[in-house]
Amino acid sequence: MASLKPRTSNLKLHNHLYPVIMAGGSGTRFWPLSRQLFPKQLLRIMGDETLIQQTLRRVVTASAPERVMISTNPAQAESIRVQLSEWKDALRDNFVLEPEGRNTAPAIALVALELVRRDPDAIMLVLPADHIVKGQRDFDAAVSLAANLALQGLLVTFGIQPIRPETGYGYIKPNRKTVLATRGKLKGHPVARFVEKPNEAKAAQYLKAGDYYWNSGMFVWRAATILDEIRRHQAVLYRGIEHISRLMQQGASRSAIDDEYRKLPSVSIDTGVMEKSTKSAMVPVSFQWSDVGSWGSLDEVASKNKAGNVVVGRVVDLGSRRSIIYGDRRVVATIGLTDMVVVDTPDATLVCPKSRAQDVKQLVEVLKQQKAPEYLEHMTVQRPWGSYTILEEGLGYKVKRVTVNPGGRLSLQMHHKRSEHWVVIAGTARVTRGEEVFDLKIGHSTEIPVETRHRLENHGQEILHIIEVQNGPYLGEDDIVRFQDDYGRTKT
Amino acid sequence: MASLKPRTSNLKLHNHLYPVIMAGGSGTRFWPLSRQLFPKQLLRIMGDETLIQQTLRRVVTASAPERVMISTNPAQAESIRVQLSEWKDALRDNFVLEPEGRNTAPAIALVALELVRRDPDAIMLVLPADHIVKGQRDFDAAVSLAANLALQGLLVTFGIQPIRPETGYGYIKPNRKTVLATRGKLKGHPVARFVEKPNEAKAAQYLKAGDYYWNSGMFVWRAATILDEIRRHQAVLYRGIEHISRLMQQGASRSAIDDEYRKLPSVSIDTGVMEKSTKSAMVPVSFQWSDVGSWGSLDEVASKNKAGNVVVGRVVDLGSRRSIIYGDRRVVATIGLTDMVVVDTPDATLVCPKSRAQDVKQLVEVLKQQKAPEYLEHMTVQRPWGSYTILEEGLGYKVKRVTVNPGGRLSLQMHHKRSEHWVVIAGTARVTRGEEVFDLKIGHSTEIPVETRHRLENHGQEILHIIEVQNGPYLGEDDIVRFQDDYGRTKT
Repeated sequence: MASLKPRTSNLKLHNHLYPVIMAGGSGTRFWPLSRQLFPKQLLRIMGDETLIQQTLRRVVTASAPERVMISTNPAQAESIRVQLSEWKDALRDNFVLEPEGRNTAPAIALVALELVRRDPDAIMLVLPADHIVKGQRDFDAAVSLAANLALQGLLVTFGIQPIRPETGYGYIKPNRKTVLATRGKLKGHPVARFVEKPNEAKAAQYLKAGDYYWNSGMFVWRAATILDEIRRHQAVLYRGIEHISRLMQQGASRSAIDDEYRKLPSVSIDTGVMEKSTKSAMVPVSFQWSDVGSWGSLDEVASKNKAGNVVVGRVVDLGSRRSIIYGDRRVVATIGLTDMVVVDTPDATLVCPKSRAQDVKQLVEVLKQQKAPEYLEHMTVQRPWGSYTILEEGLGYKVKRVTVNPGGRLSLQMHHKRSEHWVVIAGTARVTRGEEVFDLKIGHSTEIPVETRHRLENHGQEILHIIEVQNGPYLGEDDIVRFQDDYGRTKT
Repeated sequence: MASLKPRTSNLKLHNHLYPVIMAGGSGTRFWPLSRQLFPKQLLRIMGDETLIQQTLRRVVTASAPERVMISTNPAQAESIRVQLSEWKDALRDNFVLEPEGRNTAPAIALVALELVRRDPDAIMLVLPADHIVKGQRDFDAAVSLAANLALQGLLVTFGIQPIRPETGYGYIKPNRKTVLATRGKLKGHPVARFVEKPNEAKAAQYLKAGDYYWNSGMFVWRAATILDEIRRHQAVLYRGIEHISRLMQQGASRSAIDDEYRKLPSVSIDTGVMEKSTKSAMVPVSFQWSDVGSWGSLDEVASKNKAGNVVVGRVVDLGSRRSIIYGDRRVVATIGLTDMVVVDTPDATLVCPKSRAQDVKQLVEVLKQQKAPEYLEHMTVQRPWGSYTILEEGLGYKVKRVTVNPGGRLSLQMHHKRSEHWVVIAGTARVTRGEEVFDLKIGHSTEIPVETRHRLENHGQEILHIIEVQNGPYLGEDDIVRFQDDYGRTKT
């Protein structure tokens, strides 16, 4: 990774640069590792950090964390805050929550409105939270050039030189005859034409021609410019977003805002604005990029063994080649696979040829229709105080391992339908049960009867682990009455 | 299945017929569904009963359950008794335990010696516990003809008409010119020649020639005859077995017997005796047979869906063909597989092409070398009183679900290194803890401190389920002191 020092020559520019991390994706294509409530950006796909952590670290060289905006939805915000807790204070007021996903144009418009209020000269650097970029210096240079173009009133995209005849991306052809600006070897051009996802023949032709670039989904523009262009090309959307923004400022109820948001047209910023605008420009970039759009794309970014396999976890293999074998705690045993994907998680396993990896999306759709819980979330669920893992569920009981971070505490709560038993297996638990407050050490247990107020806290220095056994006729997470909560969840 | 009534015409013969079920196999080729301590015969591979249950039901039409002998080893005897509990009383004294597997000849010799003691006219019907046979009437007819040949002093094998160029079996060529006996269309012939497992070219040639049969591993002979032939062709083995049999009758210690047994040559009855004997005969049989020797062989016996897939469990598939997809409680998602095997169990997953299914054996060898517990046993372990399932193991703790059948009780026991917590999730537990005895109902719990005598019993009518949380520095199953046990395990 390049130096983390901001380049002083761009200091003035950077003071108006606001990275906007688009983190609302549902991540079905990395199922079963990703889930609807645990999308790709939260995964540690490559390296020690999750994709959203890497994305944030990428932009704090060109900007301050205080100016990073996170665009997401209420279901994911909590997990994202947990993962970005290193920048907790800086990001406190920078989450812009869409009530639900309405494609990129409404989400971007909502952030742009917020930014012009904060800084009329704001330049947005829009980045998906779940892409991989290699080459920090080249990335910074591209941002710098694009920001200069943005100051000229242009809508700038980053173009990626194709390396295969990909049919899953849109393509952009720049007008190379016109150079709008340069920085070192980098040049900015007007866009000659946008092309929707091509068929295979077209994609092969573009690859050969060499003058078409992949649309990376990364953008740089002034917030004021993009709002103007949205108003011009998506008038209905613009009026709707303005109305919602006003409601938000007036402190309208969440349900009133949600109702308005659902009325917005669902449109992408590419087809809805960029392709219609005369101000679109492109910078062909030199950094390595992957949208890690499916299990197959790990090939581009992950390191491989001699046989060309990407192997993670407790894998025992005999003679497989060019395969992706992804395990967790269980043994994954493979023999003689070629160009296959095997992904093993505590509650679901995927097996498919690499060439079919895109169809995982379709498969998740089937699970969703079947109301199978495995499409929605993992057996391990992150919480602001730690996490819990469902070890087993059966008729009338549920067994969880609950992990509470030092200083963390669950809400003071009560259940109408279930009793709970807690056995401490690591650390020390501070337990509130009815009127009593006491400490439970490792190897000790307590019983929380139905309708008894209780709370679990970790006042120690080490992580607290307990085994919780729930008993009762109904064991849903929604049987919870919260009396006090450190994380503002008493109303939810 | 054919009528269960014994045919009265053969009653006299049947009074001397002793089915001998060979149940000592280690079952590595059906891993991860089979384990070293839970081999193939204990699996419900096809139909509602396990393979050993089907094998026993197959022979009680031609014999009485009181005359069925089970040849196995101490590690498997308990699981087999549980599975054959329908015939518990009849089989009580009919288990012949080999201290360890020394191939088929010593095991057969040990049973034969026991049988000549019980009945000098005993005819043995030797059957592997883990084969599938379809066609009870044809099976009975073959047994009947073979028994007649056995009475003539012959060693009879059943020959299976090959349906593919199999390289995994031995072949037998009968001398068709000589007919030793007939029954309906069935004929018995002398053996012209035994052939070891052939290469592919040879196997194809045998299939085409039509006068070679698969050696099924099923035999019929008089116990006295096989002992004579073992003495003639395997003199060292014979003397060893005689010595061991004498030690057993004299009530020698288990370790003395084990030591002698380990000295025996490890030799199969086929190569060691049948191939050398002049008394070998073969009956080409008409029933359908499979040794279900690997996951690939399920093709021959299991029912398939329209796409030719064998599918068990929670499987979501898009467009796979001719594959075997075997799941349990977790979701198994497959896309576009062709001729593949996917087997998913709570602690291990296998993925391989059908053509490599034989190599599972090799893979289990690797796991064994790695001392991975998954080669040895399942997370669910059968016990005479019920079963337990490991839900999670970690540093200093283990979580189990324990199931106790009505009337079942665990031994009165104590642990030096661990405390235990029990939470009842179904049924009612009778708990002995130190000097106390009390009942625990659903939703209630108790704590068993280190070095406290305790016992868990089910006096109720319904199955008792508890969640057990163990805490301690050492959690091995061998940290157990048994004071009293209903199943004779106080010494083990």
